[in-house]
Amino acid sequence: MVLHGYWRSGTSYRTRIALNIKGLAYRQEPVDLREGEQKSASYLALNPQGLVPALECDDGILTQSSAIIEWLDERYPEPALFPTGGAERAKVRAMAMTVACDIHPLNNLRILKYLRRELEVDQQGVDAWAGTWIAAGFDALEATIGQHGGRFAYGDTLTAVDCHLVPQVYSAERFNVDCTRWPRLMQAVENARGEPPVAAAHPDNQPDAD
Amino acid sequence: MVLHGYWRSGTSYRTRIALNIKGLAYRQEPVDLREGEQKSASYLALNPQGLVPALECDDGILTQSSAIIEWLDERYPEPALFPTGGAERAKVRAMAMTVACDIHPLNNLRILKYLRRELEVDQQGVDAWAGTWIAAGFDALEATIGQHGGRFAYGDTLTAVDCHLVPQVYSAERFNVDCTRWPRLMQAVENARGEPPVAAAHPDNQPDAD
Repeated sequence: MVLHGYWRSGTSYRTRIALNIKGLAYRQEPVDLREGEQKSASYLALNPQGLVPALECDDGILTQSSAIIEWLDERYPEPALFPTGGAERAKVRAMAMTVACDIHPLNNLRILKYLRRELEVDQQGVDAWAGTWIAAGFDALEATIGQHGGRFAYGDTLTAVDCHLVPQVYSAERFNVDCTRWPRLMQAVENARGEPPVAAAHPDNQPDAD
Repeated sequence: MVLHGYWRSGTSYRTRIALNIKGLAYRQEPVDLREGEQKSASYLALNPQGLVPALECDDGILTQSSAIIEWLDERYPEPALFPTGGAERAKVRAMAMTVACDIHPLNNLRILKYLRRELEVDQQGVDAWAGTWIAAGFDALEATIGQHGGRFAYGDTLTAVDCHLVPQVYSAERFNVDCTRWPRLMQAVENARGEPPVAAAHPDNQPDAD
């Protein structure tokens, strides 16, 4: 498999965590977002949406990291990234979607560029913007993790929630958000970060890192 | 089942379409977003995130519309909202996620309020903001629907893509986006809108509509 992504992209980071948990081998093909390589003809031929990541596999070219994680779990069931019971699956998906829909899309590179260039928002304003949506989502997740968390964000095994949450905390820290306000969430993230498949997925450990 | 939602909310609309396609009976409990009812103590007790929808069912209280749609499809398999093959499932999920992650979250009520109040963006600026992300997502979907669409957005049966796409077009029309730029997408949406389960889910047909 070939993962087209970018070391610092949260959605690429998510996908690397899931691939690593499944113990799958993959080659990384860097797409430098700072250089606009996601809009190059060669990348658009892979993913017309011009967003990372894209995963080349025997089922074709897969896009949208949350959809890729679902595919990985169906194709390579062990170790499972989702519980088996209906209520539990729904909860894990809802927690992952809180990051995937309600936090991450508001703070990614294209949005920050628009805020800066089109709306002339300064750095303090950008940090306030990002911090607002991160706090709203993390407040909700702190409560849910308090209810359903164990060693990790949902129970005692790594799930799709951890795949989404660990990169979101990495992003929050880059926006200088004080994450000590969410102690339960941070404990789960610390525990997840200590697991080798998660640690190996960290941006600093990628071939295209600065 | 009880669906807590709001007639004009795109995520409530999505969930109604899915429930209707499955032929399930449900009662609607309105949460008036204009009145801030999503932040009331009684609603926060149901969904601490303070976002609609929330579905009360025998598996508890489910949140996040895209996660609810997955739950519905697992719990009530017929008619299926996702194809059975791995590559096809991944594609349907990726198309749905393009709406759920890359378009809708950027244009919902809390974001528009922030743009107006905190960043002092005027109505023209708000329309330009919304139009930018709708166009980026619809450009990508127009290409994908050209490849995979049939009578509907993916093939010839209603799928999770239609559940997500029909409400997004409703929203685009409210932002005065000229949707004739995406003819293949609009044809699929027109066909879906003509189906009774989809038509019944339209905001104007809900008990709490203006």
